[in-house]
Amino acid sequence: MTRNVAGTALLTDHYELTMLQAALHSGAAHRDCVFEVFARRLPDGRRYGVVAGTGRVVEAIRDFRFGEDEIAFLRDNAVVDEATLDYLASYRFTGDVWGYAEGEVYFPSSPLLVVEGTFAQACILETLVLSIMNHDSAIAGAGSRMVTAAEERPLIEMGSRRTHEEAAVAAARAAYIVGFGKTSNLEAGRRYGVPTAGTSAHSFTLLHDSESGAFQAQLESLGKGTTLLVDTYDVRAAVAEAVRLAGPELGGVRLDSGDLVAQAREVRLQLDELGATTTRITVTSDLDEYAIAALAAAPVDGYGVGTSLVTGSGAPTAGMVYKLVARKDDDGTWVSVAKASRSKTSVGGRKYALRRLDERGAAQAEVIGIGERPVNDGNDRELLVPLMRGGEAVGDLSLEAARARHEASVAELPARARRLSRGEPAIPTQYVDDVED
Amino acid sequence: MTRNVAGTALLTDHYELTMLQAALHSGAAHRDCVFEVFARRLPDGRRYGVVAGTGRVVEAIRDFRFGEDEIAFLRDNAVVDEATLDYLASYRFTGDVWGYAEGEVYFPSSPLLVVEGTFAQACILETLVLSIMNHDSAIAGAGSRMVTAAEERPLIEMGSRRTHEEAAVAAARAAYIVGFGKTSNLEAGRRYGVPTAGTSAHSFTLLHDSESGAFQAQLESLGKGTTLLVDTYDVRAAVAEAVRLAGPELGGVRLDSGDLVAQAREVRLQLDELGATTTRITVTSDLDEYAIAALAAAPVDGYGVGTSLVTGSGAPTAGMVYKLVARKDDDGTWVSVAKASRSKTSVGGRKYALRRLDERGAAQAEVIGIGERPVNDGNDRELLVPLMRGGEAVGDLSLEAARARHEASVAELPARARRLSRGEPAIPTQYVDDVED
Repeated sequence: MTRNVAGTALLTDHYELTMLQAALHSGAAHRDCVFEVFARRLPDGRRYGVVAGTGRVVEAIRDFRFGEDEIAFLRDNAVVDEATLDYLASYRFTGDVWGYAEGEVYFPSSPLLVVEGTFAQACILETLVLSIMNHDSAIAGAGSRMVTAAEERPLIEMGSRRTHEEAAVAAARAAYIVGFGKTSNLEAGRRYGVPTAGTSAHSFTLLHDSESGAFQAQLESLGKGTTLLVDTYDVRAAVAEAVRLAGPELGGVRLDSGDLVAQAREVRLQLDELGATTTRITVTSDLDEYAIAALAAAPVDGYGVGTSLVTGSGAPTAGMVYKLVARKDDDGTWVSVAKASRSKTSVGGRKYALRRLDERGAAQAEVIGIGERPVNDGNDRELLVPLMRGGEAVGDLSLEAARARHEASVAELPARARRLSRGEPAIPTQYVDDVED
Repeated sequence: MTRNVAGTALLTDHYELTMLQAALHSGAAHRDCVFEVFARRLPDGRRYGVVAGTGRVVEAIRDFRFGEDEIAFLRDNAVVDEATLDYLASYRFTGDVWGYAEGEVYFPSSPLLVVEGTFAQACILETLVLSIMNHDSAIAGAGSRMVTAAEERPLIEMGSRRTHEEAAVAAARAAYIVGFGKTSNLEAGRRYGVPTAGTSAHSFTLLHDSESGAFQAQLESLGKGTTLLVDTYDVRAAVAEAVRLAGPELGGVRLDSGDLVAQAREVRLQLDELGATTTRITVTSDLDEYAIAALAAAPVDGYGVGTSLVTGSGAPTAGMVYKLVARKDDDGTWVSVAKASRSKTSVGGRKYALRRLDERGAAQAEVIGIGERPVNDGNDRELLVPLMRGGEAVGDLSLEAARARHEASVAELPARARRLSRGEPAIPTQYVDDVED
């Protein structure tokens, strides 16, 4: 079943369209412009950020159209004048977009997305581009640390119930990019092909006349390889009953409350004593990267992470901004521009970026050129890849590519980047300013 | 323009459907059940919570259907068996839903939503119901404090760029319920009728050859009643130029950076000296409830709030859970049920709730009856209102009703509830247990 919902074009701030109206009036709307997405800083104490949402951004720009419903709303509410409505009715982005590939790590001032087009074309994309990138990158940044903390143990994303229902789908997608193996969210499975997983909740046990009856029903229906939730009443009794019913082929047990370190040890011992040596233990109670790290020495086979992942583990938005950095004058010369008042300063000019790597491929610095490409010393990696040309998507936007890139990108970073403690960005951001005055 | 996107039914955790499969197998799926949404606690230090999302929940339940696409996905990925797919293909919620009316305040253990139906019907709604209520209530809870802090000054919600693009629409809706006057989000205007507002950003000024040229273009196009952004270069020079161009009819100026208290004072003095005594000052830089309160004595006419609102000002999710609290046995008797292991205990049984009010209408306590209605002493207000009967929406689900209810509900609370400092819940939660054993 499908339903008609709004297109993407009104997922936009009112002022984008009033600015457009005034710029159409002054004629400046048709000036060629360069807008840039960057973050002034990483979330407090984080050592690197992760770019996510790029693939969604490209789709959203491609689909950014004002149809009859949108135009009627804007007219009926006098948001903009008729000349602006005419412009919007035929709007289609035909410019170029460059950006950090999805899954790439980033640092303060990294030029994460570069949008080139007329002011009219590029300005009105601001809100939607930032919504997607700020959300998805916040989840990815937190999730990447959880994957590090889990070492080689698998992680399941299961935070859907703790965030907006559509944000949940995007969160599952972002978590997969940074190395989560599965999600509980079925729509993320359908829309993006993320593997899904899940078995049962406490309500299933409570529904039945006895815990044993619930276990039996689940084993009969889902097979002995299923995971039984053993903490509804008494964990020790539940584990004993689970193995009595399923035998040593029992797939797994799940613990969702209490002291997980102590319980995991007790349950592992009990399972082993009962001969269920291959039965896996999954834990799922309010885990974040620190709790996962604290379980490193416990006999746990997998983690389910919910709230802390989908809320960015203390940093629910990535704080990225979308700024005009250059525009063409009426005489055809490019002018770098930047806000200059008391705070929130930006660096004007079209940016280029590479990750400086030493001869062993280890990241040394984020090198940003203003107006010109910094010189690649041979080992360096270009960070801005083409994402759209003339309004058409280009390049590999697949999730599998993003997942592989993320793993490789984190592996390049110095070991200190993977510490969970608060720290400085793992590598410095360096501007190369000998390329222009 | 509209586009086809997914229905709501897959915005659901995998385990809801595997549980359903096992319960269909055991036969228990057809037992009548009562599920309850509640929060074990308020966000850290908050004095009250705010229920939001209720109207969206009712729509989502009404639209919860598995169409051909959903069934095909579930079959192709072997999520559940054919018997379960048959059940889902004809799924339609036909039960009853009671709940706190949207906009109502709440406290720990308040029974915010009561869903009555078979296990099969009610269980699989869990994820979607919680996604909506946890998100929207988190925004509403934060926003209500901002409205209090702003006293009578108007607030604009402008956080779309800092949260998922669809969460942004829901956030604008929730903010309106708790007293924000407008939003920047155009889709919230179209979908929910929330008034929208906005004029221009720094990029508009940077686009033009001079700030004066940008102001002139905006005034000509949007009229002298517009709000000019005056902090791109030098605030004092910008204000002087704005009044020179627009005269004293200039609608407003906006400050988006720097020391807002000091700047607002300087700008007010300057405007008054220039005769622009009715020109309004709006401030918009990283405001939260504390920053708003700190501006109380500054000559500010309105606030724009973004990041802190849409991220719940430190509490991005409301932490509500959806629990089976009662079920019918096969002999037709109702049985209260609750998880009993080491932590996360719940209170079993169908709940009723009223707000105990004294003779002057001031709230004294949240009174919860288990299995039976607590006695209304004459002044008390019943909190559970019918939302769905036999699967059909009932009652007034309008935003205007929710907005009025919120204002009245907060006004009933003791003065301490409106303090911004960390504190205990403003009124105690009391269980009436003399109504049953």
